[in-house]
Amino acid sequence: MPKGLLFVVSGPSGAGKGTICRRLLQKMDIDLSISMTTRKPRPQEVEGENYYFISEEEFLEIIKNDGFLEYAKVYGNYYGTPKEMVTQKLENGRDVVLEIDIQGALQIKASYPDGIFIFILPPSMAELRKRITGRGSETENDINLRLGETLKEVAYIDKYDYCVVNGEIDEAVNRVAAIIIAEHSRVSEDIYELIEKYKEEI
Amino acid sequence: MPKGLLFVVSGPSGAGKGTICRRLLQKMDIDLSISMTTRKPRPQEVEGENYYFISEEEFLEIIKNDGFLEYAKVYGNYYGTPKEMVTQKLENGRDVVLEIDIQGALQIKASYPDGIFIFILPPSMAELRKRITGRGSETENDINLRLGETLKEVAYIDKYDYCVVNGEIDEAVNRVAAIIIAEHSRVSEDIYELIEKYKEEI
Repeated sequence: MPKGLLFVVSGPSGAGKGTICRRLLQKMDIDLSISMTTRKPRPQEVEGENYYFISEEEFLEIIKNDGFLEYAKVYGNYYGTPKEMVTQKLENGRDVVLEIDIQGALQIKASYPDGIFIFILPPSMAELRKRITGRGSETENDINLRLGETLKEVAYIDKYDYCVVNGEIDEAVNRVAAIIIAEHSRVSEDIYELIEKYKEEI
Repeated sequence: MPKGLLFVVSGPSGAGKGTICRRLLQKMDIDLSISMTTRKPRPQEVEGENYYFISEEEFLEIIKNDGFLEYAKVYGNYYGTPKEMVTQKLENGRDVVLEIDIQGALQIKASYPDGIFIFILPPSMAELRKRITGRGSETENDINLRLGETLKEVAYIDKYDYCVVNGEIDEAVNRVAAIIIAEHSRVSEDIYELIEKYKEEI
């Protein structure tokens, strides 16, 4: 059976990678990678859906066993992508989509270079500012810092295979869906099995 | 303006590359590359639609000026893909689709390596035999020779970027369409223009 493909959907905060992934799951036959975290669940969060909530001891043990495709400590909490859950799905022929920030994507590129890396871009900095401002939780100064950070992050785009500008959400989702279909049409080892079959038939 | 992309749709005779290209033209905003030939037009053939019909003198002159992306002599007639017509469309930002046999595709790969090369495969040799037999113009022996030839041609698949198995025509057309969309989402120099704009905006 051909292995599944890992699609890493990444980009700056506010570019819309979360929305794109949610829409993709409705549209395509693909699994979402669920992260593990040591953070306490928020009221509406569901174990195994938003995150796997584990203890710091458990998390450190998994790190020790090289069990994460990537992990990071943010504001005192650990977050990580469990390696075995992803690779097992891939081995079973399932595609996996993984939503992650840019630092995390770069770590995954190191640990799983066969992944397909998609950078989601905002249509403009003005639009990104509007989206961040709309969330209402940050000061003007915070927002300016964030936009400066975004510019630095965008410089990593050359580590990615694809980039999708998320101006209109339907179009962006369709583009990512097209990338998934196209990647399954790449000339790869799987095709040589079909060619072997041809030889037997003739 | 970003340049257009050249999609070379190729594969063994009977795989259905012609049908796929016709359907693609109805579905996508893309131009077809029209070949030149020294063959006399058949009753229903239209100049500039099926072929550009030119004299042998004209054809040889274009060869001398390196004016073909590829050309071949088949049963005493020349056939070729005029370079300037294709490159001009690409420069104008138009995508071009080019339907061609495998030998021609390999020539184009040498003269225009930026092209995207798609190999159309029949779902099985049994199905290919049925399609060729259906045309009714060849003997059993001819058909066996053709299938043997196809096996040799399929070995060139590793020179291609994509392969699409044409079992169900709608699905095959959708796959090629997805490849076209995905290739426009590749990280390329065009994206750096957008990033430069970001910098001005901030």
